[in-house]
This record gives sequence, structure tokens and C-alpha cells, in this order.
Amino acid sequence: MRLIDQRVLPGRLRFLNCRSVDELRAAIASLAVRGAPALGAAGAYGVALAAHTLRTKPQVRAAAKQIARERPTAVNLAWGVERALTAFEAGGAAGALAEAERIAQDDVARNRVLGAHGATVVPVGGTVLTHCNTGSLATVGYGTALGVVRAAHEQKRRPRVLADETRPLLQGARLTMWELQRLGVPSALVPDGAAASLMAAGEVDVVLVGADRIAANGDVANKIGTYGLSIAARHHQIPFYVAAPTSTIDLGTASGNEIRIEERDPSEVTHAAGVPIAPPGSDARNPAFDVTPARLVTAIITEAGIARPPYRRSLPAHVRRAAAV
Amino acid sequence: MRLIDQRVLPGRLRFLNCRSVDELRAAIASLAVRGAPALGAAGAYGVALAAHTLRTKPQVRAAAKQIARERPTAVNLAWGVERALTAFEAGGAAGALAEAERIAQDDVARNRVLGAHGATVVPVGGTVLTHCNTGSLATVGYGTALGVVRAAHEQKRRPRVLADETRPLLQGARLTMWELQRLGVPSALVPDGAAASLMAAGEVDVVLVGADRIAANGDVANKIGTYGLSIAARHHQIPFYVAAPTSTIDLGTASGNEIRIEERDPSEVTHAAGVPIAPPGSDARNPAFDVTPARLVTAIITEAGIARPPYRRSLPAHVRRAAAV
Repeated sequence: MRLIDQRVLPGRLRFLNCRSVDELRAAIASLAVRGAPALGAAGAYGVALAAHTLRTKPQVRAAAKQIARERPTAVNLAWGVERALTAFEAGGAAGALAEAERIAQDDVARNRVLGAHGATVVPVGGTVLTHCNTGSLATVGYGTALGVVRAAHEQKRRPRVLADETRPLLQGARLTMWELQRLGVPSALVPDGAAASLMAAGEVDVVLVGADRIAANGDVANKIGTYGLSIAARHHQIPFYVAAPTSTIDLGTASGNEIRIEERDPSEVTHAAGVPIAPPGSDARNPAFDVTPARLVTAIITEAGIARPPYRRSLPAHVRRAAAV
Repeated sequence: MRLIDQRVLPGRLRFLNCRSVDELRAAIASLAVRGAPALGAAGAYGVALAAHTLRTKPQVRAAAKQIARERPTAVNLAWGVERALTAFEAGGAAGALAEAERIAQDDVARNRVLGAHGATVVPVGGTVLTHCNTGSLATVGYGTALGVVRAAHEQKRRPRVLADETRPLLQGARLTMWELQRLGVPSALVPDGAAASLMAAGEVDVVLVGADRIAANGDVANKIGTYGLSIAARHHQIPFYVAAPTSTIDLGTASGNEIRIEERDPSEVTHAAGVPIAPPGSDARNPAFDVTPARLVTAIITEAGIARPPYRRSLPAHVRRAAAV
């Protein structure tokens, strides 16, 4: 498996070759590959890798389970693993690989459709505030929230982007700014804490974020900092959109209360760009995600269209429509 | 003038000797010395330094004006310069120095009284969320918002602190965590974007911040990120307190709309701890402060007590009472 190593961007564009399940698990745990839809494909390819490198079916099943557990919040990882494992049970290693290829091609196609649906929520010449990275890197290609921006850009709606840097791991600064530069979309980086005052100054027309898991009631788990943005957006009456493929919708999870939030190593917070920023021995809190309640979400953009409240009704309809594509 | 160089903390405790007004101005502009009350004293000592090193009265007056302009948002700088300049006009260089010494001693004494007033707002065993640095380093000694925590700690109220790291310059991570460790107050560092979800989880009992300028109507200019915190605190019905000496209250400024917000170099945002985090050529926004409207401020703690709304009435009373001390 060959992946872009997202840890060293934007300084270097380096590829990582994973020759074993353990190497892939390490790549997932260390965020060399990250982003919910990208993890869906990585999980499926991981099962194919297991099927090609391990000897027995029980070994492949055990490896699949281990891969799925590396990131507990993003539902796409378990979803991709599950799909490839089902294909493996029916068609062996070749079946698993074919399913992974299908997921990967499908992801790009679905993101393009999602982007086309979403572009209409970006006012012509408007400014989008976004958080974390939801572009090509976070998916197999094209992107979710950033795919919406990309579609708006391709449709000559002239979007501008304010990108939250997204501490602690700075995916906004490192990855989103890099992608926007390559796309030629005018952009500026902002500290996470500056978003609310830019909203108050009238500089934000719409907030667009991705998702790692969407519960059946419309609650959205996404990168830490998303929830605070949603509160600030509501305070300023700015629309707050979530863009995600239907594979991110988990109808088996009733609400955000049931979503397990991954707490990562405190050293990610006591360091910035690898440099220690706090005195030795400092404690830190590092929840990787937060949950935005459905009532603060204006709409959820999927490849099946724009889902609006009440989400208990609109989300299952989106999942059904997307499955029919 | 001898100052702690706050740029290199917590890695090193280095002192900076300023032998000329230009050296002091560079120290203020680069945030070697920072924090509204500390800037008040630095401004006053700067006038004394000018009076001792420059030849003519017009030169001293011009230097005073230049010092006051280095940081336009923090009112204490101009206030300290003005007080020392008035003393200089009446009593020459010796008068300016005596006034600077008075301001410095006064600041510590007033902060202690402020802390004692404020300690009562910290519930016993409660958790305080704070932003930026408002401790000894930000003042001449003791601190404002962190002085309240310190007083609560000394009164055995067993406060715990969650410290926002405070991007871009990480004063929370570098300075507040360092001070809390020295004080022995239990603390954990949090990314700025994590504050809202910690509030939702019930982990924050009270928010306590400092101020760089408080307008007559109670609007508060403070470090970027404060405004977003105030919105999140209100959303979760968590009290939001501002702690500042009355020298930070600017009755000549009617509201926050009149406060000029310093926009600093974009490279502070495109870098973290000196390391580039965004691709070369990235644009960035770097407003150093934001304005929290009075309606989101539960109360303002000064050395004259706890000012509550309506602030147009309570703030002038605090200024009068403090002047009488």
C-alpha cells in the first residue's frame, strides 16, 4: 500500500509504503493517513493487505479487527474494514482487493457529486471558514467540505477561505493551506481562537466542516474545535454546514452521547510542530474530537443532496438514496 | 531597566537589560515584556529611562510618545507613560523614576487586593479555565486573573486550572503553565479549540481572564480567543469573569467599537514556536486582541471589589474608590 505521508506535509511530499498490517496500523495511529473517508479506503485496503500477507482466515479476521480499532471515532474506518472483510469472506484476497478498489473509486465519484450539491451554499464571492483538513488528503480524492469549496471554485463562484490552523496537529495550517494553494483558491490561515472575532467583524459568510461520524439524530463528531465554532456561528447567525459522504452517517448510533471520543497523547498538546511549548512535567488534555449537537447544524451535505432537520428523517433517506446510486 | 525576557520562557529564565529607549521599545514590540499591568510599569520606567538618557525635555516627550504607541490596544502602557511624564514635567528625571517605582509597588499591592476580592468567585475545589497569561509575568507581581487563582489557592480553596495554550504566541502554554507549576496549583494545558467541549463535559466551573482595555460600558479588549470563550461560556451558563486593576479601565473610551485592535505580523500565525507550519507564501490573519461585549461578562473584578452590570454605573465607582486608596 502506498500512501502520502501527511505528517511531513507541507515541508515534504513523501510517500509511505506499507508492506504489512502492522506498518499500516502504525501509519493510521500516527496520522500518516487521516481523514474519515481516506481512513475508509485505508481500512479496506488494509484487509486486502492482510488477505495477501497472512496465512489463515482467522488471522485476516483478527487483523481486520485490529485495524478498525486504531481510530475509534471515525466511523468510516470500521465501515471500510467491514465491507472488505465481507468481500474477503465471499471472494478471498482478490475479492477484498476488488472491494477496496471499488470503495476508493467510489469515494472520489461521491465527493464530486457532494461538492456539486454543496457549492450552492457558498455565496458568490463569499468567505468560507473551515476547520481541520477535508480535502483530497482527507479522502481518496477531491474532498468533502473542501470539495464543496473546490466545486464552488470550479463553478466560478470565487470563494475565499479562512482556514483554522487546528491545533494540536495543525492539519488546517499544514494540509488545508497546501491544498488551497494548489487549487488557486484565495486563503488565509487563522488561529483557532480568532474565528469568533472574524465572525463578529462580518468576515465569515458560511462555516463548512467535515465529519468523522454522524449519529442518526444529526449530532456530528468532528475534529476538536468544531463544536466551539458551531456555537460561535449560531451566536452570529452564520450558517454552519457539515459535508460528508453517507458512509460517515452511522444510523446505528442514536446520538452523539454514544460516540466514543478518542483521547490522544498529551505530548501532542505540550508540543507544537515537534517543539516543546510548555514546561517539562506539564499535564495536558487532548480530546481529538468533539460533538456538535444537531440543533447547531444548519444542514448536512452528502452525495445524495442536502439533508436538513429533522435529521432522524432526512439522514436515513440520504443513506437509502446513496445506496441506490 | 532589567526585565524578564518572556520570549524565551519556559525554556530559559533570561534577563534583558534595556539601556536606551530604543532597546525598551524593541522589548515591548517583540513582547519580551507583555501583559497590560506590566506594560504600565514598563512605560513609566521607560519615561524615567528617557529622562536619564536624553538631553532635552522635547526629546523626552517625543520618546514617551513613541513608547506609548508600541502597543495600541493595552491602555496601561499609555497610562503608565502619561503618569511618569506628568511627574517628569513637575520633578524632572528623579520625579519620573519615583513615579515609576510608585506604579510598580502599587501594582503588586493592588493585585493582592484584587485577588482577595476575586477568590470568592472560585468554588471550593472548582476548575478555572483561563486564557493567555495574567500572572506575575503579566503584571509587576502577583497577577490579575491568575492572581485570583493564586489567592484562592492561598485561601485553601483548592482551585484547579485548565490553561488555554493561546495561539499564536502560546503565552498560556509557555508562561501560565510555568507560573502554575511554581505556585503548585494543579493544572492542565488545553488547545484553544478544546475549551468549548470541556465546558460541555461539565469540566469548567468558571472562566477567568484578564483585560488589556475595558471601555466605559464594560466591553473588554483582551487576547485573541477571549471573545469565543465568552460566547461558549454563556452557551453553557458558566460565569465569565474579567480581572483587571482599575488602571485598565478607560472611561474615555465609550465602547469596544472605539478600541483599536493591533494586527500583528502574519508570520506569528504561519509559525509555531519558531517553526514554519504552513506552506511558503501562505497569507494569515493575526488580530492580537478581540472585544468581548459587556453583556457576556458576568462581572469585572478590580482592586476596588467586584463590578457588576450595569457597568456604566459600577466602573466609574470602582475607579473613584481605587483612586482614594
